Amino acid sequence: MASNSFGHIFKITTWGESHGKAIGVVIDGCPAGLEIDEAEIQRELERRAPGKAHVSPRKEADQAQILSGVFEGKTTGAPISILIPNQDTDSSKYEPVKHLLKPGHANYTYLKKYGIFDHRGGGRSSGRETAARVAGGAIAKKFLASKGMKIIAFMKQMGSITASIDPADEEKLRKDTLASAIFCPDPLAESAMIAFLEKLKTEGNSTGGIVEFIAYDVPVGLGDPVYEKLEARLAFAMMGLPATKGFEIGSGFESVAMTGDAHNDIYTKDGEKVRTKTNFSGGILGGISNGMPIIGRVAFKPASSIKKSQETLNLSGEEAEFTLPEGSRHDPCVAIRAVPVVETMVALVLADAFLMNSHAMMGSAYYP
Amino acid sequence: MASNSFGHIFKITTWGESHGKAIGVVIDGCPAGLEIDEAEIQRELERRAPGKAHVSPRKEADQAQILSGVFEGKTTGAPISILIPNQDTDSSKYEPVKHLLKPGHANYTYLKKYGIFDHRGGGRSSGRETAARVAGGAIAKKFLASKGMKIIAFMKQMGSITASIDPADEEKLRKDTLASAIFCPDPLAESAMIAFLEKLKTEGNSTGGIVEFIAYDVPVGLGDPVYEKLEARLAFAMMGLPATKGFEIGSGFESVAMTGDAHNDIYTKDGEKVRTKTNFSGGILGGISNGMPIIGRVAFKPASSIKKSQETLNLSGEEAEFTLPEGSRHDPCVAIRAVPVVETMVALVLADAFLMNSHAMMGSAYYP
Amino acid sequence: MASNSFGHIFKITTWGESHGKAIGVVIDGCPAGLEIDEAEIQRELERRAPGKAHVSPRKEADQAQILSGVFEGKTTGAPISILIPNQDTDSSKYEPVKHLLKPGHANYTYLKKYGIFDHRGGGRSSGRETAARVAGGAIAKKFLASKGMKIIAFMKQMGSITASIDPADEEKLRKDTLASAIFCPDPLAESAMIAFLEKLKTEGNSTGGIVEFIAYDVPVGLGDPVYEKLEARLAFAMMGLPATKGFEIGSGFESVAMTGDAHNDIYTKDGEKVRTKTNFSGGILGGISNGMPIIGRVAFKPASSIKKSQETLNLSGEEAEFTLPEGSRHDPCVAIRAVPVVETMVALVLADAFLMNSHAMMGSAYYP
Amino acid sequence: MASNSFGHIFKITTWGESHGKAIGVVIDGCPAGLEIDEAEIQRELERRAPGKAHVSPRKEADQAQILSGVFEGKTTGAPISILIPNQDTDSSKYEPVKHLLKPGHANYTYLKKYGIFDHRGGGRSSGRETAARVAGGAIAKKFLASKGMKIIAFMKQMGSITASIDPADEEKLRKDTLASAIFCPDPLAESAMIAFLEKLKTEGNSTGGIVEFIAYDVPVGLGDPVYEKLEARLAFAMMGLPATKGFEIGSGFESVAMTGDAHNDIYTKDGEKVRTKTNFSGGILGGISNGMPIIGRVAFKPASSIKKSQETLNLSGEEAEFTLPEGSRHDPCVAIRAVPVVETMVALVLADAFLMNSHAMMGSAYYP
Repeated sequence: MASNSFGHIFKITTWGESHGKAIGVVIDGCPAGLEIDEAEIQRELERRAPGKAHVSPRKEADQAQILSGVFEGKTTGAPISILIPNQDTDSSKYEPVKHLLKPGHANYTYLKKYGIFDHRGGGRSSGRETAARVAGGAIAKKFLASKGMKIIAFMKQMGSITASIDPADEEKLRKDTLASAIFCPDPLAESAMIAFLEKLKTEGNSTGGIVEFIAYDVPVGLGDPVYEKLEARLAFAMMGLPATKGFEIGSGFESVAMTGDAHNDIYTKDGEKVRTKTNFSGGILGGISNGMPIIGRVAFKPASSIKKSQETLNLSGEEAEFTLPEGSRHDPCVAIRAVPVVETMVALVLADAFLMNSHAMMGSAYYP
Repeated sequence: MASNSFGHIFKITTWGESHGKAIGVVIDGCPAGLEIDEAEIQRELERRAPGKAHVSPRKEADQAQILSGVFEGKTTGAPISILIPNQDTDSSKYEPVKHLLKPGHANYTYLKKYGIFDHRGGGRSSGRETAARVAGGAIAKKFLASKGMKIIAFMKQMGSITASIDPADEEKLRKDTLASAIFCPDPLAESAMIAFLEKLKTEGNSTGGIVEFIAYDVPVGLGDPVYEKLEARLAFAMMGLPATKGFEIGSGFESVAMTGDAHNDIYTKDGEKVRTKTNFSGGILGGISNGMPIIGRVAFKPASSIKKSQETLNLSGEEAEFTLPEGSRHDPCVAIRAVPVVETMVALVLADAFLMNSHAMMGSAYYP
Repeated sequence: MASNSFGHIFKITTWGESHGKAIGVVIDGCPAGLEIDEAEIQRELERRAPGKAHVSPRKEADQAQILSGVFEGKTTGAPISILIPNQDTDSSKYEPVKHLLKPGHANYTYLKKYGIFDHRGGGRSSGRETAARVAGGAIAKKFLASKGMKIIAFMKQMGSITASIDPADEEKLRKDTLASAIFCPDPLAESAMIAFLEKLKTEGNSTGGIVEFIAYDVPVGLGDPVYEKLEARLAFAMMGLPATKGFEIGSGFESVAMTGDAHNDIYTKDGEKVRTKTNFSGGILGGISNGMPIIGRVAFKPASSIKKSQETLNLSGEEAEFTLPEGSRHDPCVAIRAVPVVETMVALVLADAFLMNSHAMMGSAYYP
Repeated sequence: MASNSFGHIFKITTWGESHGKAIGVVIDGCPAGLEIDEAEIQRELERRAPGKAHVSPRKEADQAQILSGVFEGKTTGAPISILIPNQDTDSSKYEPVKHLLKPGHANYTYLKKYGIFDHRGGGRSSGRETAARVAGGAIAKKFLASKGMKIIAFMKQMGSITASIDPADEEKLRKDTLASAIFCPDPLAESAMIAFLEKLKTEGNSTGGIVEFIAYDVPVGLGDPVYEKLEARLAFAMMGLPATKGFEIGSGFESVAMTGDAHNDIYTKDGEKVRTKTNFSGGILGGISNGMPIIGRVAFKPASSIKKSQETLNLSGEEAEFTLPEGSRHDPCVAIRAVPVVETMVALVLADAFLMNSHAMMGSAYYP
């Protein structure tokens, strides 16, 4: 069944396999009149791309091409098609393992579901697909920026190393995150993470990570109870990313061991604005944004592709040994590359929620 | 925007406020020919209802009425409408607090979004709405049972008290859970939880909880990459429940501190079946069920309604004090009542995923 | 598959069979703050009901009950559930024909699709289902009225008798339509139609009809190319009504024999407004409303339920004779009862299109 | 709002403007394992292309490229992206008229809705967009063929010239249609049409047309009451095509002047199959296919682009004169080019309906 679109009103449809000719995205429902240029999309793609140290060495010179929906530098309301040619289309290295079930990968389930599997580098289940999302997210971010909303994501945790940040200081958080090759805004934690990455590279092993996101200046009122609650949309968006194992909003799993009197955020005034003294809610109450920063976290598992040999079965059900082919990408921590993708998914959810809420918000500051 | 429906092919639409005349659900897309009777739905509703000790004392004598879609005891393929009259419609007790922002509640955000708030006991944001889901879930469970699938949910954690269970022993898990007044299958943890509940009741305070769910005998192949992955649908379902703060599948947040060689589930044969030696994936690989039990967890925050007085603002923005009205429900741990609701949401997701997968699975054991 | 909902943002879900306990509708996505009372809905239902002369003699004392979504006389943004109990639930008269394929009816196709058929008076395929739509349409009309839009539908043709009207004189058209027991605004045509109906009643036969609709004061900009064009939504809405065989917008099938120079509507100014001198487009250009009245027509076939005996097959495939059971409804022209239903579907389409267009129209006269 | 996708389970998303870099389609939800090659898609595109005599002289050398979703010649279940580069991207000829409201065109409504209009040759409202649909329809047809279903569309009427055909003789109908340069299977009518086209070309004028479609060997059971009735989906599909003004199924508008006893199709046996003696229903009863050929008609208006000068307004609201720019396409009858597009839309509707019906049909001849 059709399942490659995300969003109701602001909707993206992605297509393409990791080793096919190209990947791409169609953005449908973007309001007209938004200024767009390919360079902006390119910048977002490069943030995700693994040119940086400590991440997979494969070179992806992603060159986004806008094929429709933009006229004289502005969106027209028509669907925006963006195409990104694949550079690395040589899939011969996967030949030796195409008859094996890859531990932790999707080839077994794809094969059972579809009766066929494009074994070239993960096909559709590859992280490569997220580049198309990022191209779409660049448009969503642009739209949100026109309404004053900003999003930042960063490495909150790698293995057991946790970064300390102050969510209240947006500027410092952004500056420190951008300054880090691994999107970690806490220099102390960053250096420990980098050391850990080096060790994992040497061992051919991998680790998991937590990406935290914060959306600032989101107006009160986004999110549609009862099934389209804002945190439900965010969870849906994040758990659709490859390698995700968990999602939290606000206090998350830590709330479990708290008591109600400590957890309830107390309302207070900040000038004319209603705020809460704490933000355990993560900026959402009853599924609707409450004007506080929206804060959440996404858990990524250790990458399945490791350089250690593993026992497995082949397609005939016989015992076999799986070894990652020479030349395969090895990411010791996929969460790093996922940071801009998490930002993208937040942007897509918020752009959609904002437009879903248009009628309700008419006459507000956002619709002057 | 319309946001009170859940599901694509097997779809429920719920309606009703906690203190209105009734609540209800329309189940659309249920295959024809399924045997249904009101008693079964009633039993599911009673599992959720707070007649048990340790839970809110309010008496909900929910009497489900099937109004359509069932003919001579069988579903006809037409939408099934189920109505549950509300007993507790006296909302006068809420009058004294209707001008206050309730800490941790949704009345502020509803008011800002809709310009109006049905203050009677939480209106649409009340946990009461979940009774309508449970009625719909009873039908979904019935359908899944006809395909051999079974679901169980239970209290995995309350505050800092964690239950130990063996997911491999389905029968014992089900028996122990049913035997517990608080759905906790581990008698030792159960007694600690009950003591904790008594303490919280005395203090008028609340705690959070984790509900774990396991779906057994789910065929390989459910879930539709890339945006309708099975874990994404589950996350969307759970995070749309009131009071949820987090969702995990399989290893969840614990995966973060693991290494790839430990986390990858190794394939093995169990007779003719392909299994994995561990189940860190939680029964889903690449968004598609892999035939192992589907295991996940949902974090519920401590209930916002506590018997302690809290500072707040009134609707005019002035400082005020909020005290729970006499006679209001006080649940020291909402996670308990959520256990059957979590089962319901798993059932709705699986029924929908199964039907979405119908074409792909033709000729399989499930479509003989 | 779930198929009993209509609309994207303003959405109705209907349920119920003709001879079950009740029918009903859930209206989801209606903006908050709209004043609603049951009496208004009741009036719309009575327009549709067959109490009038010349229409089916069955008495339907439809009493709509609003069960949710309205608080202190106003919509809250929550789903509005409306229930209409069925009066005529004695289905024993259908026993003698339950083993027969009814010519022109849906029982054969339902039986083949669902393996089961609720034979009581047509079940879900009965025109009775449209009463639930009308209750939903009453809310949609109320919303549209708050934006200045008005809709009228009327009998344009019955058999070969055609009514003459002046679409430019909205007031007269409305007055004359309301004055007619068969919704025919042309008194001359009306009397011919009534004579024809009497003849058909005597003969136990039926005839078809064309219902025309006009929507006035629709703002420019409704409708979303390329697949959600306004005329496409209208066509989808109308062809989903029982007994419809055709749909036209503007010049319709007559355009086929015209030439381009005659058919192109010429733009002109009417004060500050852009208008067209003719309205062959029917108020829609490129799928988007152009500010002219939206005019369309719906063809209804002669009712299948006639009092003449007809040859057919029984469920075992043997030749048989079908005779309408004593006491069955016999409508000589179902198009008459369909007039308010056509208005309803126009209202549902326009309310949805208006809300879909909210973001684009911010700052316009409609969002002051 | 997102509105460039069609279908629920088998879904296409189209993008691209007539004079942009390219147009394209993403087909999502196509079952895996279907054999596909670019040549087949190419053939379908060429049927639509105006290389033939009597149609617009512009040369469109559409070269479809499959970019994803096909591996080793078979669909994989992943989205299939097809790109068609635009050849005719010189839009300078439209400069002189870009400030004018084009009579019968969509530039006024696009401008009012989006505040911007890609004036190059019609932008998104151009018939060029339908080439992307045809590429998607080629895949849908391939899927339907694997289930034994076949579709044919042809010119039923041009201006006042009507073709006579025998729907029962599928082979002759297909042969005669393919043999005709204007898709008219009746040689006598064809020659009259061609003469009429020559006259219109000389005059620079245009005429309308009716395209009839017939789908053969459609299984009983497709279509989902009450809102997703098969004829409603067909109407929605067709009325979303450019230049359409009307849609009919079976007896259509002619049913209005018939009586019930003549219109009811009488059931009869044909060997083991249930058939009807006549087919006024057009192969659909109660919104569900009944096993008879599905027959419908679509009315196309005379093309708006004519070579006669027409009065109009400019964007400032002043009176002006519109003359088609030199080198513009002039199609005397757009219905001709629409014939393969109508086939495409039937195929998309049926493929979607078939997959929606998968669960219900398991165990039938179609799911052996």
